[in-house]
Amino acid sequence: MKAVGIVVEYNPFHNGHLYHVQQTRKKTSADCVIAVMSSSFTQRGEPAIVPKWERARMALAGGVDLVVELPYPFAVQTAEWFAQGAVSILDALFCEQLCFGSEHGSIEPFIKTAQLLVYKKEQHNEKVKQYVRQGINYAKAYALALYDIGHDTLDVSQPNNILGLHYVKAIIEQRSNIKPETIQRIVAHYHDETLPVNDNIASATSIRRFLQVSDDDVARYVPHTTYETLQTYRHTYMTWHDWEKYFPFLKYRLLTMEVDDIQQIAEVEEGIEYRLKKAIIHATSFHDFLSAVKTKRYTWTRLQRICTHILTNVTKKEIAKAIESKRATYVRPLAMNETGRAYLQEVKKHMTLPLVTNAKHMRHDPIYQIEKKATQAYVSILPEPLCSEALQREYKTPPLR
Amino acid sequence: MKAVGIVVEYNPFHNGHLYHVQQTRKKTSADCVIAVMSSSFTQRGEPAIVPKWERARMALAGGVDLVVELPYPFAVQTAEWFAQGAVSILDALFCEQLCFGSEHGSIEPFIKTAQLLVYKKEQHNEKVKQYVRQGINYAKAYALALYDIGHDTLDVSQPNNILGLHYVKAIIEQRSNIKPETIQRIVAHYHDETLPVNDNIASATSIRRFLQVSDDDVARYVPHTTYETLQTYRHTYMTWHDWEKYFPFLKYRLLTMEVDDIQQIAEVEEGIEYRLKKAIIHATSFHDFLSAVKTKRYTWTRLQRICTHILTNVTKKEIAKAIESKRATYVRPLAMNETGRAYLQEVKKHMTLPLVTNAKHMRHDPIYQIEKKATQAYVSILPEPLCSEALQREYKTPPLR
Repeated sequence: MKAVGIVVEYNPFHNGHLYHVQQTRKKTSADCVIAVMSSSFTQRGEPAIVPKWERARMALAGGVDLVVELPYPFAVQTAEWFAQGAVSILDALFCEQLCFGSEHGSIEPFIKTAQLLVYKKEQHNEKVKQYVRQGINYAKAYALALYDIGHDTLDVSQPNNILGLHYVKAIIEQRSNIKPETIQRIVAHYHDETLPVNDNIASATSIRRFLQVSDDDVARYVPHTTYETLQTYRHTYMTWHDWEKYFPFLKYRLLTMEVDDIQQIAEVEEGIEYRLKKAIIHATSFHDFLSAVKTKRYTWTRLQRICTHILTNVTKKEIAKAIESKRATYVRPLAMNETGRAYLQEVKKHMTLPLVTNAKHMRHDPIYQIEKKATQAYVSILPEPLCSEALQREYKTPPLR
Repeated sequence: MKAVGIVVEYNPFHNGHLYHVQQTRKKTSADCVIAVMSSSFTQRGEPAIVPKWERARMALAGGVDLVVELPYPFAVQTAEWFAQGAVSILDALFCEQLCFGSEHGSIEPFIKTAQLLVYKKEQHNEKVKQYVRQGINYAKAYALALYDIGHDTLDVSQPNNILGLHYVKAIIEQRSNIKPETIQRIVAHYHDETLPVNDNIASATSIRRFLQVSDDDVARYVPHTTYETLQTYRHTYMTWHDWEKYFPFLKYRLLTMEVDDIQQIAEVEEGIEYRLKKAIIHATSFHDFLSAVKTKRYTWTRLQRICTHILTNVTKKEIAKAIESKRATYVRPLAMNETGRAYLQEVKKHMTLPLVTNAKHMRHDPIYQIEKKATQAYVSILPEPLCSEALQREYKTPPLR
């Protein structure tokens, strides 16, 4: 059997994702589509609107054959580390291809640029540092430095282009046999916050925003299973998961933390801990808080990730230890259909990473220890006894079928 | 002017406390009654039902002339340290007497027993250790060891007797000129949980319990000002402060803490951190949680204090540094009437501790740093923008008149 990998967040799974899965299958004629999916928190440092289990169910219904977890130490990360983790898992699962959606739409410039980045790594790093020293934020500095070392075809200010570039770069660096592919995204702007009226495709950001107001508005932009899963979740748990819900916990935590302890938290650098401590006293919402902390130097995304690490109490030291090898240390399926199951059956005897269906066995793995803390922080907003039940779900849920 | 000191929690101020203030004034014929009052959390490790400012207002209306804060590092402590802190503040304020309520009711056995404890300190400590090693909890071990070194008149299993004993002992140890006095308590049982029907005096525990159900039931057991203050507080803040309200925060915190970090927390000893970590997963309420953690060795009170220290993130190291000298480092009035103001005016030029009316100036004091964290944890349960307002109150509230 032949497998293609995709890297996803499905926050939540919508018609654009459905299209991506269908196009991936068509373009690669793979037998099995494997999605590596962020767990409880996303790359941009936000709690996923519903837990990984619900999102995995949506993915299965949307045509994915196997959903595996991208654990927190890789998921809540810069694009570079996010890609390293995802590629290492797809590689461990013997995917022949990795197919990502991008603004650009053809693979050649990704390969060229990635090669340039790998072979002129030090030169590029040096340039990035120079720009950052000038007060330019990391994303911009990265693009400018890329231009300086001779690149001029790929627009890396586009969020999916930059992610795609990092997948290809990770493939090269990990000497993986995975062949990268790309398909053009049909949602023009990732950050769109209004729902389009003439189409049935909208960004996940706009869908999440509209879910806060009314479920009905989003029905046409998501497959039926997504709609139903979201409804059931809210009916059972009485909430979505969004930053505002976690704000009381973040505030409580920041208020009772010493500045020295904030400095230990992942991604905290250069005195931002003092800004955080000061702004939290007056902030009455997460949005207010981040607006007060924001400077030119820190992107909103970076600040959101820092807040996520504070919430989950994940330190620089822990993260560094966990991702030292730049690879995942286990593969954890969250959901699979018959095809997914058959594929796993076929490859598992050759796999060099443990295939984990019961998280209990991973208790002492540094990556899993972080993943577990993140799950525990994630369910903290649920009322009892739902919170306790959700906690036990992390250990007790076998991969969904 | 002549001042008498009392040590209180007023959680909340009730008719029994009113009687105590009146009797104290009568017995000592002091011009000024000074109450040292626990701040946000009590000696038994519970959040006070309303903030210190509200409780100070009740005290003033109940006849106290000056209310000063017993800061967290002394307030949330064993009886011994609680007494050391309180006596040091009353001593700094030149109180001539300290008058406490006790089950026993006459002062001689307190003085005798305290002297015994001071002069046979090492012998007593050694005996206590022996009993604790046998698995007996600290309170019992303390009483048994006291009996062993020759004491036989004071029943130290009574909570107010033991507190009183520690006041007298602290007076001796601190070589203070304060003269101790006691009056018999008229609430027979401190831990009573039902309201008496034939009287207008009930324990604070039973009053707190009944407040959860209905305000009306408690009206006859508290002065009018207490009743009104409680009503206004609940009307404004939509809540009382009790452990169950803080349980989501405690649970979140314990779940995301490493075992090593729990070991650093004040009063955590002998592997209790593993019991805490294990029990929290299944616990759906604070009461369930503590019941699951409880062993013979740990009293309920001790466990509650540990939970309070976890909630406020107060470590052994911080506490040790703060109370190294066994004395308070400042005197902070929370409320005063004209008599209280006149008294302060008279004594302040002779005081050796700073008199703090704006907490901002104490920012770098180790005791105040802990007090501040406790305030911040205490207000975390309030909805926004009330939480932010309450935080600013800590700095901005001048002593009430």
